[in-house]
Amino acid sequence: MNDVEFKDLVRTWKDFPTNGILFKDINPLLRTPDSLNYLNEKLSNMCTNIQMNKIGAIESRGFIIGALLAMRLSKGLVLIRKEGKLPGPTIKQSYSIEYGTRIMEIQNDAILSGEKILIADDLLATGGSAIAAASLVEKLGGKVVGFVFIICLNYLEGMDKLRNHGYSVKSILEYD
Amino acid sequence: MNDVEFKDLVRTWKDFPTNGILFKDINPLLRTPDSLNYLNEKLSNMCTNIQMNKIGAIESRGFIIGALLAMRLSKGLVLIRKEGKLPGPTIKQSYSIEYGTRIMEIQNDAILSGEKILIADDLLATGGSAIAAASLVEKLGGKVVGFVFIICLNYLEGMDKLRNHGYSVKSILEYD
Repeated sequence: MNDVEFKDLVRTWKDFPTNGILFKDINPLLRTPDSLNYLNEKLSNMCTNIQMNKIGAIESRGFIIGALLAMRLSKGLVLIRKEGKLPGPTIKQSYSIEYGTRIMEIQNDAILSGEKILIADDLLATGGSAIAAASLVEKLGGKVVGFVFIICLNYLEGMDKLRNHGYSVKSILEYD
Repeated sequence: MNDVEFKDLVRTWKDFPTNGILFKDINPLLRTPDSLNYLNEKLSNMCTNIQMNKIGAIESRGFIIGALLAMRLSKGLVLIRKEGKLPGPTIKQSYSIEYGTRIMEIQNDAILSGEKILIADDLLATGGSAIAAASLVEKLGGKVVGFVFIICLNYLEGMDKLRNHGYSVKSILEYD
């Protein structure tokens, strides 16, 4: 597998989940050992020079990226979830997405003060969920050392938004 | 890390997400490289003798188990998701959970006819979601070669239910 073959596996679906959205479908990237291994290599190579304690994985597809990275880099994995999914004391943060408003949640004891967190998700669109995840990490005293994605939709300017906040951002694929 | 230390990391929260549910919280198992590595070793050791083509991962925490197993065993990963999350042609299956009814979905081209699928999730309760996932795999012509979980709640009899259907079931931890 090479970069072109990998990118060709991504499918675009029109008007999903709502009208006007061009949805990038990463499911085919996961389906074969070859493409999954390529994904894993790319992710870990992008992140080997980043100092971190834990990976913060954004629900749901970020759990896949987060699990792969945490294992490969021998780090802890922390789940940043949709509202109502995490038991025990949590903190919450609301955010806007392309098609509505959501709330994100993290367990209070998920991150220790001073820990360095790399945040992982499958796709960067407007950056709303990424900023919300960073806010949760920082409220717990953690330091966000960067973001990693499979796909960045440059035309939605999420990468600019995150970099304007001072965050480092890496993505395997970009769409202009 | 040993078996007792690993099991001690699981926390039980009363009345989450609704009254009467004792919720097993696996988040602490993921948070350190030590416990995550132990989890990964246990999962892969349980599954090395099973012949499979792909891991079928049940949303959301099953994505973590599925990603770890797929990488470790060099298999493809297929996502079995909550309704409305998967683009393109899909098939659906409804099921009952401890606290309501849900619909599960899979992409039509996720599994090829005759492929052997190991289904992964974090927790086995009544087995409703597991049976629904198996049904989706079988509707696409796949063969379910077993189930793997981190936790099985024996008192909810999901393991009996799956075994009565003829499925092989493995779980790292069991609660009577």
